[in-house]
Amino acid sequence: MIAPSRQRLQVDERRTQLLDLAIQLFGGRSYEDISIDEFAKKGGISKGLLYHYFPSKRALYVAAVGRAAEQLLEKTHVDGGGASASSLETVRRGLDAYLAYVEEHAAAYAFLLRSGIGSDAEVAGLVEATRDAFAKRIGAGLGLTEHDAEGRILVRGWVGFVEATSLAWAESPSGITRERLAELILGAFAAGVQLVKHK
Amino acid sequence: MIAPSRQRLQVDERRTQLLDLAIQLFGGRSYEDISIDEFAKKGGISKGLLYHYFPSKRALYVAAVGRAAEQLLEKTHVDGGGASASSLETVRRGLDAYLAYVEEHAAAYAFLLRSGIGSDAEVAGLVEATRDAFAKRIGAGLGLTEHDAEGRILVRGWVGFVEATSLAWAESPSGITRERLAELILGAFAAGVQLVKHK
Repeated sequence: MIAPSRQRLQVDERRTQLLDLAIQLFGGRSYEDISIDEFAKKGGISKGLLYHYFPSKRALYVAAVGRAAEQLLEKTHVDGGGASASSLETVRRGLDAYLAYVEEHAAAYAFLLRSGIGSDAEVAGLVEATRDAFAKRIGAGLGLTEHDAEGRILVRGWVGFVEATSLAWAESPSGITRERLAELILGAFAAGVQLVKHK
Repeated sequence: MIAPSRQRLQVDERRTQLLDLAIQLFGGRSYEDISIDEFAKKGGISKGLLYHYFPSKRALYVAAVGRAAEQLLEKTHVDGGGASASSLETVRRGLDAYLAYVEEHAAAYAFLLRSGIGSDAEVAGLVEATRDAFAKRIGAGLGLTEHDAEGRILVRGWVGFVEATSLAWAESPSGITRERLAELILGAFAAGVQLVKHK
């Protein structure tokens, strides 16, 4: 194995720093409101060098959405726990990891979910791919097949439910702990699981 | 009362026709993909006259999102049914009206929900206001107060659940009838209502 050069590592690190800054800035204000000039200034980088990393403002924005989506999926990955773990237990562990991410990265989470679905096909694709990945994880946890149309629709509903509660909580926690939120979501989810299994 | 002039009625009617065409076109393709030239041609209207109705493509788009939101809220309004109706019964009637709208206006519904949240503050405001209105209706139906933080978060979750199931169904009904979808959603909802009431 050949180790990556020190320069390569520095480039990757700088790129990641710039994306984290983009998530933070675009998360708080609108796309139109942030100019490349302001972004370069806040990032302590010349406009010329910034364009070396990202050829346009849109490219920077799309890459930031991509990073937020990737982080969310990575940090919420839990393995099935072996044959002994029940499907609901796997879902519970995934939910705990998901809410931990929301708690620690509230701004990035809100940025991802409000990132401009539909008006930009590439951004919409990233957000939809993230939803599909969660729907597949949950569907696999419940043992649903591709052909189960009702199960598929309900699982999409659960992804929407978790997103909406998580976003409301990220934007205004109102003294509700992460553990309590997980309890509320799982209580509602458990009833839904019964519906899918005994329909 | 002074009746509106015939000319005024014709202007309103033409505006509505143009908005319905916008919902149909933007619902199927991206914002960038549709030029004002193409839109004017499809609408059988000169570009000059079109600009008389909408000063820019963005203004046309925002007005179309506004019309889709307004239609959805109007067509799903049900009164409380008097003191005899239970809260779940009111929610059920609202849900039936909601799914009837989704069934009859699948393209407009998908357009509204995918209309570019976040990247445009005005569009995001319209979509969020629609969600708030539904959350208030459901909250009122369940007798929740503004101070009930857990109830507020769960109700937002239910709006997300109904949106996600409705969108999945609108885009791929898979032989599921509207009545069956309402049954699935209500089954999950009934369990959630118990959680809110007995927490």
